Amino acid sequence: MRMDKASESPLPKSKESRRSGGRAARRAKRQAGPIERPVRAGMAGGQYKPLSDADLQQIHRAAVEILATIGIGDVTPQAEEIALMHGCSMSAHGRLLIPASVIEDVIAGACREYVIHSRSAEHADLQVGGNRVHYATSGEAVSIYEVASKSYRPSTLKDLYDLARMVEVLPNIHQFGQMVVPTELEIAFEHDLNVAYAISAGTQKPAEMTFTDVKNIAPAISLFDRVLGGDGRFKEKPYLSFGGCPIVSPLRFGADNLDVLIETSRLGLINDIAIAPQAGATAPAHLAGALAQVTAEGLACLAMVNFVRPGCPMSFAIWPFVSDLRTGSFSGGSGEEALLMAAAAQIGRFYDLPTTVAASMTDSKLPDAQAGYEKGISSVMAGLAGANRVLESAGMLGSLMGCSFEALVIDNDMLGMAQRALRGIEVSDETLNLEAIKDVVLGPGHFLGHPSTLDVMESEYLYPDIADRTATGTWEKFGALDMLERASYRVNEILSEQPPIHIDKHADAMIRDQFPIKLKVGEFAS
Amino acid sequence: MRMDKASESPLPKSKESRRSGGRAARRAKRQAGPIERPVRAGMAGGQYKPLSDADLQQIHRAAVEILATIGIGDVTPQAEEIALMHGCSMSAHGRLLIPASVIEDVIAGACREYVIHSRSAEHADLQVGGNRVHYATSGEAVSIYEVASKSYRPSTLKDLYDLARMVEVLPNIHQFGQMVVPTELEIAFEHDLNVAYAISAGTQKPAEMTFTDVKNIAPAISLFDRVLGGDGRFKEKPYLSFGGCPIVSPLRFGADNLDVLIETSRLGLINDIAIAPQAGATAPAHLAGALAQVTAEGLACLAMVNFVRPGCPMSFAIWPFVSDLRTGSFSGGSGEEALLMAAAAQIGRFYDLPTTVAASMTDSKLPDAQAGYEKGISSVMAGLAGANRVLESAGMLGSLMGCSFEALVIDNDMLGMAQRALRGIEVSDETLNLEAIKDVVLGPGHFLGHPSTLDVMESEYLYPDIADRTATGTWEKFGALDMLERASYRVNEILSEQPPIHIDKHADAMIRDQFPIKLKVGEFAS
Repeated sequence: MRMDKASESPLPKSKESRRSGGRAARRAKRQAGPIERPVRAGMAGGQYKPLSDADLQQIHRAAVEILATIGIGDVTPQAEEIALMHGCSMSAHGRLLIPASVIEDVIAGACREYVIHSRSAEHADLQVGGNRVHYATSGEAVSIYEVASKSYRPSTLKDLYDLARMVEVLPNIHQFGQMVVPTELEIAFEHDLNVAYAISAGTQKPAEMTFTDVKNIAPAISLFDRVLGGDGRFKEKPYLSFGGCPIVSPLRFGADNLDVLIETSRLGLINDIAIAPQAGATAPAHLAGALAQVTAEGLACLAMVNFVRPGCPMSFAIWPFVSDLRTGSFSGGSGEEALLMAAAAQIGRFYDLPTTVAASMTDSKLPDAQAGYEKGISSVMAGLAGANRVLESAGMLGSLMGCSFEALVIDNDMLGMAQRALRGIEVSDETLNLEAIKDVVLGPGHFLGHPSTLDVMESEYLYPDIADRTATGTWEKFGALDMLERASYRVNEILSEQPPIHIDKHADAMIRDQFPIKLKVGEFAS
Repeated sequence: MRMDKASESPLPKSKESRRSGGRAARRAKRQAGPIERPVRAGMAGGQYKPLSDADLQQIHRAAVEILATIGIGDVTPQAEEIALMHGCSMSAHGRLLIPASVIEDVIAGACREYVIHSRSAEHADLQVGGNRVHYATSGEAVSIYEVASKSYRPSTLKDLYDLARMVEVLPNIHQFGQMVVPTELEIAFEHDLNVAYAISAGTQKPAEMTFTDVKNIAPAISLFDRVLGGDGRFKEKPYLSFGGCPIVSPLRFGADNLDVLIETSRLGLINDIAIAPQAGATAPAHLAGALAQVTAEGLACLAMVNFVRPGCPMSFAIWPFVSDLRTGSFSGGSGEEALLMAAAAQIGRFYDLPTTVAASMTDSKLPDAQAGYEKGISSVMAGLAGANRVLESAGMLGSLMGCSFEALVIDNDMLGMAQRALRGIEVSDETLNLEAIKDVVLGPGHFLGHPSTLDVMESEYLYPDIADRTATGTWEKFGALDMLERASYRVNEILSEQPPIHIDKHADAMIRDQFPIKLKVGEFAS
């Protein structure tokens, strides 16, 4: 595979391309606000219901029974103290029991919606809740797939920044969550603050990151305040949510992440956790049993958050993962997985809680046909089931072990297709337009060129960026490229642009004075 | 890419592999009946409803109005005579008008279910109707994609036979519809009879073919009777349905295919038509308008069939295709297309008619990531929407222009994933199994190896054939193959087996006496 310069790209010019002529053009575009597109952030899901109402009630009752009778193990002293003050008790096995009445009160009083803000008028804020669907990256992979060598290498801070830059210009990805870990940064403080910086520098889209140490939250908020131009600004308009896995399945807390959860709740930040037991390993192999357990684990976290700060924003993020039972390994790309995540989204809708699920995972090690269908099937099901934020939705490979720049570009087109399906069909006298049918049938016999066609060409139809729709002859003439080859060209085009820093120059200087920022690239974009 | 001999294949041995030791083993397997698998033909769809009830009513009213006021053009004298006898009239423009009351009677009296029989206990009959979902091939492409040269060549009779052999052993494809045209056979009689023979020789699964000339129907039935061992047998247990496109959109009949439709209806055969107007070209660009027109076209065919023979089996096969409006070309792989086909399935369920839709189409010219996600998204949506038979669902490329052996094998795994998602989650006290959760949580802390896990390992989980789930190191050790490379090995393995003829030796001799059969390969399987 060649990795030519952008000028030699055989790709057709994209109308939505970011190659629109430098900083001034970008600024003009930003000021014009979000572009009207056939698909957008926050379209309505829920047309697909994998579970019946009776199924939902039965899973709910099972989860409540689990919490009241089996409970959660490994409770930290701090968490125990908080929970006992709110009507919970400890079992003979030393596990935290949460009565049904407490769970019902927690659900009734929980946050129904939260907002993760964009830092640019060009991008939408995420209004997370209801039946509104958004697609986001996430994953914290530790490696990057290299197309040329067909192998993986450790991910770096520069990769995190470059991935953020990519997402900034890929229109079907609505949020940049931390896709990779900067593996070269071993000191927790340097690690967390550089992640905070690299994301803020690379994109103005709503974002997400995960703290490795609770002590780094306050300094990071200070960094975000600088980015926004003043103390207290981040609290007013948070542009990141905060990840973490406070549960060690089956049904135990994880101390470090529970500390972070309690602290972010105290501060009223957006708790963007993930609870990922693995069916057949750390959850029952029966899909129904896995759902009951993960629902119990999710409700336990919801209870802790609401004990600390009633109504504090939290994603009801139940992510039932799947084992390949022949090996015990996690399989992210299976039909069972796609189904479980869709059901998880529906359970969140049942409780009317803001949800995240994981979809677009694949077991494939590279962006091939397997990656394509595993990602496509799970992504569209998650959206149609009404997940508020579909995470892991772009760029991930190898069951979340690795990440790929090329996959990110391919998945942007894949998510466009899924989102066009999600949008659905508007049926009205205007869209049925029987007059137009009569005109055409009794007249020219063809709709191409008819005013009713030209009217909806840009509003009803989404055109992909790099997916091939050419005639066979044209395809052969341009080198008979496959999707991965086309993606390589697009990645090169995007990354060969002058790297932007989406932080004010003055703020950047202050941040670099205050924190050990390692990222050296970039030009100031604002 | 290498195309080694089967013995050198780097693929793991498949449990469901057809390499189970020759004819005796195959016969034993056949006699054991269909294998119990986690997915099967005829699972229930309808969990996904792209249209609201009000949308459905509005589309229905629009379709009825189109038939009553705009009507259908290019009516043949034979069709006109039949229709006028059943309450229709001709408009001032010479178009056939069908009143609402006639349409309502036709829908009320139409066939609700038909059966396409398998010729082996190893395969399921297709019970087409209700909310039961099956996946099938079809397409009548004119070319085959060659991996080695990255190019297309004309398809042949041998290809048709080989494709049938492949489908015979691919468990997630429930019917073999005529995937390619034998382009070397130019005489209609030779063409149609050899298609009938090649399909019958290659597979015992339920099948489908299309006649190019109405005169060839009777001889072909004679051939099928021979295959089944006696006159009149095919009528009792039809193992093929019959394709054709009796509509030339917008809203005209096509004379040749209409003749076939009337004749197959007279004979009480299964009318397996496809009505495929192209939104933005031969149908409105508004998706709702395209649905209204294609529904009218489908109801017009339903009326003709039921005028000729009330209750005659017919697929309500409304296939709204999509144009890329930048070029006017058909785009099979778009989100709009996946959505329209799901809506078409729902419209058929609204009428309670047996349906087919087209899904798993792609605009890609080869089995890459684009083909993967375009196929995956549309296939799962069609199934979840409750299409009775999802056609074009395996092996097709380039917007149905071509066909690929490798894509067929890949799509078998893709359809397995879609079908596992379609099956859904069974929720009951048994599958929730709170006792097992308690056992594990208070005991070993792990479900792997627990009896409840071992119990469901083969019933709850589907394991793919060639999709990769290995660890990265293993994947690299086995050559870092992508899905297309693995598929090439599998194709080679299957086709390097002794080619079977699934026709009794004596019957075969009689058929070859009677008809100009061109196929020379094969051993007799029965």
